[in-house]
Amino acid sequence: MAEFGKVTPEIVEAIKAATAPNRVYFGADIIEDFSHDEMTIYGKKMPDVVVDATSTEEVSAVMKIAYDNDIPVTPRGAGTGLVGACVPIYGGIVINTTKMNKIESYDLDNFVVHVQCGVLLNDLAEDCTRQGLMYPPDPGEKFATLGGNVSTNAGGMRAVKYGATRDYVRAMTVVLPTGEITKFGSTVSKTSSGYSLLNLMIGSEGTLGIITELTLKIIPAPQETVSLVIPFEKLSDCIATVPKFKINHLNPQALEFMERAIVDVSERYVGKSVYPKALDGVEAGAYLLVTFDGDSKEELDNIIETASELALENEAIDVLVADTPAKIKDAWAARSSFLEAIKSESNWKDGEELIDECDVVVPLNEIAPYVEYVYQVGDKLGLRVESFGHAGDGNLHIYTIGDDKISLADFKASAEQFFDDIYAEAGRRGGLVSGEHAIGSAKMKYLENSVGATQMKIMQEIKKVFDPKMILNPGKVCYKL
Amino acid sequence: MAEFGKVTPEIVEAIKAATAPNRVYFGADIIEDFSHDEMTIYGKKMPDVVVDATSTEEVSAVMKIAYDNDIPVTPRGAGTGLVGACVPIYGGIVINTTKMNKIESYDLDNFVVHVQCGVLLNDLAEDCTRQGLMYPPDPGEKFATLGGNVSTNAGGMRAVKYGATRDYVRAMTVVLPTGEITKFGSTVSKTSSGYSLLNLMIGSEGTLGIITELTLKIIPAPQETVSLVIPFEKLSDCIATVPKFKINHLNPQALEFMERAIVDVSERYVGKSVYPKALDGVEAGAYLLVTFDGDSKEELDNIIETASELALENEAIDVLVADTPAKIKDAWAARSSFLEAIKSESNWKDGEELIDECDVVVPLNEIAPYVEYVYQVGDKLGLRVESFGHAGDGNLHIYTIGDDKISLADFKASAEQFFDDIYAEAGRRGGLVSGEHAIGSAKMKYLENSVGATQMKIMQEIKKVFDPKMILNPGKVCYKL
Repeated sequence: MAEFGKVTPEIVEAIKAATAPNRVYFGADIIEDFSHDEMTIYGKKMPDVVVDATSTEEVSAVMKIAYDNDIPVTPRGAGTGLVGACVPIYGGIVINTTKMNKIESYDLDNFVVHVQCGVLLNDLAEDCTRQGLMYPPDPGEKFATLGGNVSTNAGGMRAVKYGATRDYVRAMTVVLPTGEITKFGSTVSKTSSGYSLLNLMIGSEGTLGIITELTLKIIPAPQETVSLVIPFEKLSDCIATVPKFKINHLNPQALEFMERAIVDVSERYVGKSVYPKALDGVEAGAYLLVTFDGDSKEELDNIIETASELALENEAIDVLVADTPAKIKDAWAARSSFLEAIKSESNWKDGEELIDECDVVVPLNEIAPYVEYVYQVGDKLGLRVESFGHAGDGNLHIYTIGDDKISLADFKASAEQFFDDIYAEAGRRGGLVSGEHAIGSAKMKYLENSVGATQMKIMQEIKKVFDPKMILNPGKVCYKL
Repeated sequence: MAEFGKVTPEIVEAIKAATAPNRVYFGADIIEDFSHDEMTIYGKKMPDVVVDATSTEEVSAVMKIAYDNDIPVTPRGAGTGLVGACVPIYGGIVINTTKMNKIESYDLDNFVVHVQCGVLLNDLAEDCTRQGLMYPPDPGEKFATLGGNVSTNAGGMRAVKYGATRDYVRAMTVVLPTGEITKFGSTVSKTSSGYSLLNLMIGSEGTLGIITELTLKIIPAPQETVSLVIPFEKLSDCIATVPKFKINHLNPQALEFMERAIVDVSERYVGKSVYPKALDGVEAGAYLLVTFDGDSKEELDNIIETASELALENEAIDVLVADTPAKIKDAWAARSSFLEAIKSESNWKDGEELIDECDVVVPLNEIAPYVEYVYQVGDKLGLRVESFGHAGDGNLHIYTIGDDKISLADFKASAEQFFDDIYAEAGRRGGLVSGEHAIGSAKMKYLENSVGATQMKIMQEIKKVFDPKMILNPGKVCYKL
């Protein structure tokens, strides 16, 4: 492979000439945010140029200049990723898509919405709600862009009932690494028209093309929602209850588990205690947080009754019903603010954020024994470990957190030992590397361990098919230079 | 590209040595069925060898022999395809998977079933029903293999509520063109672990690898079902009613439209008249056939009431409720037997089946004007045209049928003129080439017209990544030799 070209003043001028006025940042004008995502532990790198793109045509024009000059290009949404996928590790051009933030139009004959890639999830969600509609994917991070969501096949709370982002992408406009503009898919809901390049793009983390426009499926919003907070003494009972909801024809919109320690940290942070901690002298060790939706109060009342009976038969120590918007918000606050809560209580050396995480996904019946294993490994290595996750789909978020007694280098070394062990164990239990955060630059080793050399080679060759000069988001997902 | 190798007696012996006794057929021992699928109009070709494979390891062993000797291999399920995908157009080896017909095990913690690729859809459907479970994909052809269903991303009646086959594939074991065995996906329900090779395989029509085992998602069976037959005077009113179901929070399991002429043909064939033909002097011109499912009679009673009011407000001339298994079966009989009905009433020259079809998919609001256009083109060309389709997802099945006054060559020429025109029109209306029947050898021209040269080239290059010798199911989907 040829070396990358350098960003010369001439190239900067060419980019300026190809884009809207005052949208190109160079050298000292680039803010530090563009050097990292939300996991700084995977390393930072400043790009040479940042372009605030405003249209597909501009993205195409910039990509063509990069292609002609062998300059690496890293597409970036809101920078909320957790695996380093938007870090320009070889410098070059960052194309910032957050200014492409227009919700273009709704098509209620076909139940789709047309958006630019930089629209924030939260903005689409609120816009849909105002019209009695719902865009079901609901990742924890509401201020990610939809382009970012599609690029990671983001999952979220409601995946257990409604599926992940993949299930809501009907079509996309893509700028290929040559600069050519193409469109995958269409407004239609099913297709068997050649290899699904649309599905290949979904979850490809900006390495095969730059997604600039999206046609997304929407649904009529359910008219009623209720959440249940269900404390258990033991995590194993808590997890064992999960498949029983389904087999009893209960179809929760969201089904999360949290361990007691995390709830305590989060409730201190939000300053409100909602989760029951003990009943008749039995301490809560873990919680299910379940949301049901439906179209009438009566329907939900029946569901609450069945779900409560089911939980209590399965060793729940209580069932708390949150049936008003305020109560539902409180119940979910502890779930949503864990990462900020941890950061607020931490005192790290030299201001470095000593947090590393993985989001493996395992079969549902493996959750409880796997989490137990994870804590054993953490104990053995003397690491602080916290976990929570999407019980309904086996997707776990496992964090290890350092303190002020450990240096960055030592923390990284212990964290690597920890993750080497627990990723391998997830694989042995039929799990995969990532449920929703994806691979980026941080998890390539674990992907290779999981899928093996043959599949890694297929991915690398597919990468070359789309990007023969290997300039688009280099060093991510499946290959290093 | 090198020329294909020849199947020598030594190669036949090597295949026999690598497989179970008496499972290899050669020369005159091969039955004629292996030369075609259900659309003989796209041409027939006998293979040199047929292997009834019984395991993944056998498929791998045969594939290795083929790879070493540059012999083309065509995987085949039940041969129920409609685009020639299982026809061995360059001869060589056909691997028949119908003996790999074991339902291996159910995993109700994770709501999946593990099957061999040759299990028939009907067998899995019945086995699920006996256990209170449902495998939602429901293509019209119940005697296709599940491997075939996955290879075409088969859709079917229930796709409007439950999605197509793609949405039910969690994992697959695949024999690559080199003979290597690999596994894509896992039991888990969501993943963001590198490029989705699993989704690339789905719908790839046996050109990238041979699917030998599948892990499929299942769900608890809904406890109640009801069908409505709704006649309209005009097709346009019939189609315009479709999106209104959804916006009114009605979520039908199936939503089909049929034109009057087809219903008449089918009812003559099944020998039973169920569909209302006129009311108060108004003749029915088109019908919606709608099925709803739910978990209680009360729930369905409410749905029937709302749906009936909605239909009558939208110019339906009547609503017929089929609420017993026998009535539901009768209502669906006309929908299911159209192709056999046409064949039974036809009198073709020289015993050739003069039927050609397409299964374009268009946005829902384009169905009515598109169908009107299709009939105009048919009239102009003097062709007999019949159509029906999945109104809920815009997937139309359009047939043209010859008679005894036209030769095969003349029929083919007119049909080509007809399809050239209506595929182009579907594209102009935002549609795609195939909703569920796929591309095979028959629809490659229309795929290229639809997606353009760049995407065809990407598909061809992806094909080369998986199959560098281009020996697996050659001449299908995206490239000719």
